[in-house]
Amino acid sequence: MVKQTKQVLKIIPLGGQEEVGRNLTVFELGQDIVILDMGLQFPEEDMPGIDYIIPDIRYLDDKKRNIRGVILSHGHLDHIGAVPHLLPRLGWPHVFASKLTLFLLKRRLEEVNLGKYLKAHEIKSLDEELKLGSFNIKFFKVAHSIMDALGVVLQTPFGNVIHLGDWRYDLDPVKGKPTDFKHLAGLNTNKKPSLLMMESLGSTKEGHQLSESEVLMNIKNIIREAPGRIIVATFASMVERVGQIVFIAEEFGKKVALDGYSMKLNIEIAKKVGYLKFRQDVLIDIKNIQNYPSNKVIVVATGAQGEDRAALMRIASGEHRQIKIEKSDTVIFSSSVIPGNERTVQRLKDTLYRQGANVFHKEIMDVHGGGHALIEDIKLLIRQVKPKYLLPVYANHYLLREAGKVAESIGFPKENIFILDNGSLGLLDKKGFRVENKKVPVQYVFVDGLGVGDIGNVVLRDRQVLAKDGMFVIVAVVDRQTGKVKGSPDIISRGFIYLRESKDLLHQTRKKVIEIVDRAAGSGGAVNWSYIKDEIRNKIGAFFYAKTQRRPMILPVVIEV
Amino acid sequence: MVKQTKQVLKIIPLGGQEEVGRNLTVFELGQDIVILDMGLQFPEEDMPGIDYIIPDIRYLDDKKRNIRGVILSHGHLDHIGAVPHLLPRLGWPHVFASKLTLFLLKRRLEEVNLGKYLKAHEIKSLDEELKLGSFNIKFFKVAHSIMDALGVVLQTPFGNVIHLGDWRYDLDPVKGKPTDFKHLAGLNTNKKPSLLMMESLGSTKEGHQLSESEVLMNIKNIIREAPGRIIVATFASMVERVGQIVFIAEEFGKKVALDGYSMKLNIEIAKKVGYLKFRQDVLIDIKNIQNYPSNKVIVVATGAQGEDRAALMRIASGEHRQIKIEKSDTVIFSSSVIPGNERTVQRLKDTLYRQGANVFHKEIMDVHGGGHALIEDIKLLIRQVKPKYLLPVYANHYLLREAGKVAESIGFPKENIFILDNGSLGLLDKKGFRVENKKVPVQYVFVDGLGVGDIGNVVLRDRQVLAKDGMFVIVAVVDRQTGKVKGSPDIISRGFIYLRESKDLLHQTRKKVIEIVDRAAGSGGAVNWSYIKDEIRNKIGAFFYAKTQRRPMILPVVIEV
Repeated sequence: MVKQTKQVLKIIPLGGQEEVGRNLTVFELGQDIVILDMGLQFPEEDMPGIDYIIPDIRYLDDKKRNIRGVILSHGHLDHIGAVPHLLPRLGWPHVFASKLTLFLLKRRLEEVNLGKYLKAHEIKSLDEELKLGSFNIKFFKVAHSIMDALGVVLQTPFGNVIHLGDWRYDLDPVKGKPTDFKHLAGLNTNKKPSLLMMESLGSTKEGHQLSESEVLMNIKNIIREAPGRIIVATFASMVERVGQIVFIAEEFGKKVALDGYSMKLNIEIAKKVGYLKFRQDVLIDIKNIQNYPSNKVIVVATGAQGEDRAALMRIASGEHRQIKIEKSDTVIFSSSVIPGNERTVQRLKDTLYRQGANVFHKEIMDVHGGGHALIEDIKLLIRQVKPKYLLPVYANHYLLREAGKVAESIGFPKENIFILDNGSLGLLDKKGFRVENKKVPVQYVFVDGLGVGDIGNVVLRDRQVLAKDGMFVIVAVVDRQTGKVKGSPDIISRGFIYLRESKDLLHQTRKKVIEIVDRAAGSGGAVNWSYIKDEIRNKIGAFFYAKTQRRPMILPVVIEV
Repeated sequence: MVKQTKQVLKIIPLGGQEEVGRNLTVFELGQDIVILDMGLQFPEEDMPGIDYIIPDIRYLDDKKRNIRGVILSHGHLDHIGAVPHLLPRLGWPHVFASKLTLFLLKRRLEEVNLGKYLKAHEIKSLDEELKLGSFNIKFFKVAHSIMDALGVVLQTPFGNVIHLGDWRYDLDPVKGKPTDFKHLAGLNTNKKPSLLMMESLGSTKEGHQLSESEVLMNIKNIIREAPGRIIVATFASMVERVGQIVFIAEEFGKKVALDGYSMKLNIEIAKKVGYLKFRQDVLIDIKNIQNYPSNKVIVVATGAQGEDRAALMRIASGEHRQIKIEKSDTVIFSSSVIPGNERTVQRLKDTLYRQGANVFHKEIMDVHGGGHALIEDIKLLIRQVKPKYLLPVYANHYLLREAGKVAESIGFPKENIFILDNGSLGLLDKKGFRVENKKVPVQYVFVDGLGVGDIGNVVLRDRQVLAKDGMFVIVAVVDRQTGKVKGSPDIISRGFIYLRESKDLLHQTRKKVIEIVDRAAGSGGAVNWSYIKDEIRNKIGAFFYAKTQRRPMILPVVIEV
């Protein structure tokens, strides 16, 4: 079926920085390259102003002709979000994905007017097999927090690479059969080893991930008991959960108003592709909720992470046009808190409790189960798939190491567990799997507004300095003839001190600047302006620090007239 | 004992913003005021450059003469840290605290040369009673993560106010008797009601707080099994735990090197006051650890929160003078992650795992128990103390509400539970307890360097804007005679774009500025400079947004010559 060659399969995680490989993985076999996912990463707290980060694909720049296809595992932004940046740069290779994923992808491209360039192929059936160069590719169904997630099997002469993308077990599904990965063990009929690439975000969390049925049962009970209006806050990407809430509403004769641009679009798409079926009149426009008694209304809104402009935040802060919190309201946070958002979410909860709403969240009731596998799921997976090699991926390094320990704890041989980094070169050939010593260079590629990759460490460091103690611009006009400062230097400062209450400090600063310039320039002869600017920076900097223990960025401007 | 009056006891939480009353609470009975705690709060993520926040005590400004004493419950910074700012402003009222708390307080004052002003009284015995004006005050022992924590009973004509400060149960203590608060129920012999002020940080967490014995047993086992050096990272304030680790080291014949300025000082103080007893030769200087085989060395270091300059971070980043991580090292994170620090701690763990250390943390083993009570502890407390009124305090509003629900769940009457805010006026008199409608005004008082309260919302907002998209200063020199721009406008920009790679943008910007000025000023007649500056801000702002979708702060300077 696949030709035996002397080549080697290269596996290179290229995206995600901390969560290894999460956004993009390259598979290279001789002259053939297959890419899995093209997602984006959200910025860290020390990256002010950055919108998001995309994978560094310099490795592919002179190999564009070899790309046989791009496979997208599911429709979340950390797996498709970088497509508008990367596909054009790679010359629009073919994209392969499931129905919902492709719909979401098309929308993302159309938003930036790139939809017309897309060459896409929909994976319609799990029986479908692709031949992409010397790769033979099969798909399998994966449970995750969005519908239509696909796992991938890359069949190569050296064995099968099984990649689950983001995954969980749903052992008690709302509909359909419980998740089972046993069939993956049966793929290795040709005695070739199999290599399992396993997302490992939950590798330090005990037990099995909560079943979606249990979550929905809890939500249903809350909805049944609620005296008035219900507001469910969740991620726009939780398409399946939102769909189920619409079904519950139907059952109880309530109406659902969706609030949040992406949430509305996602549900619209899921309905269009046939994954959600409900009577159209269950959905009402948020503008019309006043026309219904409040105990007939469920609002499903974005903003459970405390995002500034999202629906729930506007509701809490009283800035929402249609909804003010009332004492009979029930608010359900059906989401987990993303690390880094804890304090914002705490404040959001404070505000809602203060307004008297009855609030349910994960801390006090199981109203959310994550999309990711936990320790017992990892054990079950390894026992079902029985791979020869295990590569934990898609999580912080320490979680990959912990996933390795989980595997060891059930007897998986330590020497067959490999932890890659972004840029690592994993090699699979007939001798087996190993990791090359050298790495492919990868760095953060920042997207800020229309700029891609133009923000480097210098600009970022400047932003951090500006944030900490603000800045101070001093404009001195110097008479070319006399070398003396004319008039009083102009001062512009932001984020440093409250200028109106610091007249004395400003007065002394002006005096010092005049002294510095006059001393250095007033003596006649050639004037070293960069020396003078350095002097102003250093002396005024030291003066400010002594007076305030703050270090604003000092920017001297000297103008000769 | 205490005179019966027609007065009312006012209870006013004044510090902590989100964690109600955590940093300072005022008790006022007629002409007598007693203050509990004077702590500081660490800033939120949206407060760049702020060092910390102190309580807003404007309410006390014209009541200084009435202050009969300041009681400090324990030595943590959120309870004593604002003392250097507030005691001087209040005319140095008397301070009452336990031995260790007073030592820590003195050190804090001496650091800023204020030690000599302190008027302090040490609470030497739990039998001691204080009469502060018309308050009769008793103390009781409280278990927390620092030794010598005191609970307070304020006896008033209207009943007893019981305040625990930060508390937990230690039902299986390393030494001494298990915690028991039953005796507090017996205080109300005169048929007056008692009011319990209860720290409620753990009100959404199931079960009892982990016993310190269990935590230490786990740490001991890790230390016993460790093949090489051990690095324990914890808070400098966890004096008791650090002391126990020194005992374990003694038992195993190992040496302990403390790393971190406050940690060393705290242990020194605890030893000096007699709370820690160990042979001095167990402690070694961090500089000398090379003189011992690595399996004989335990390093106890600060920095488990990923603090930038703390010991553990320097060890991880390879910047520590004496310690580089080796594969045989065992690192124990004996602390919980403070909300907001999650991602930093994840990155720190990544770095340590990457360097091959064997790492233990709370996620994978119980190597830390917090200093705060959980749901079952709260129930036990209420059952033991049997108060008439319950005021959950010292936590975010939603946690106070949840603490109230915990109390209700065991039959505590809802109408006797009161949730205060900072600035709320709680009133206790012979009719019972109630909350006044009006509030005392409170706002954030920021400390930034030497400035206290001089940073307001304007400066903070400027810092946020600067952080997001940087700033852009344009200096245009205009000829007074012609109204025309002379030469080319100067540009200074930081944090916006990388100037060297944006020559074309800068060229167009200069051209636009010249056009704007020339059009408005070049026509002769009176020139409206503030109009011109607005024009530059708006037009250049719109131009930048169109070109980059970024909104730097634009600061035009026009100089007439």
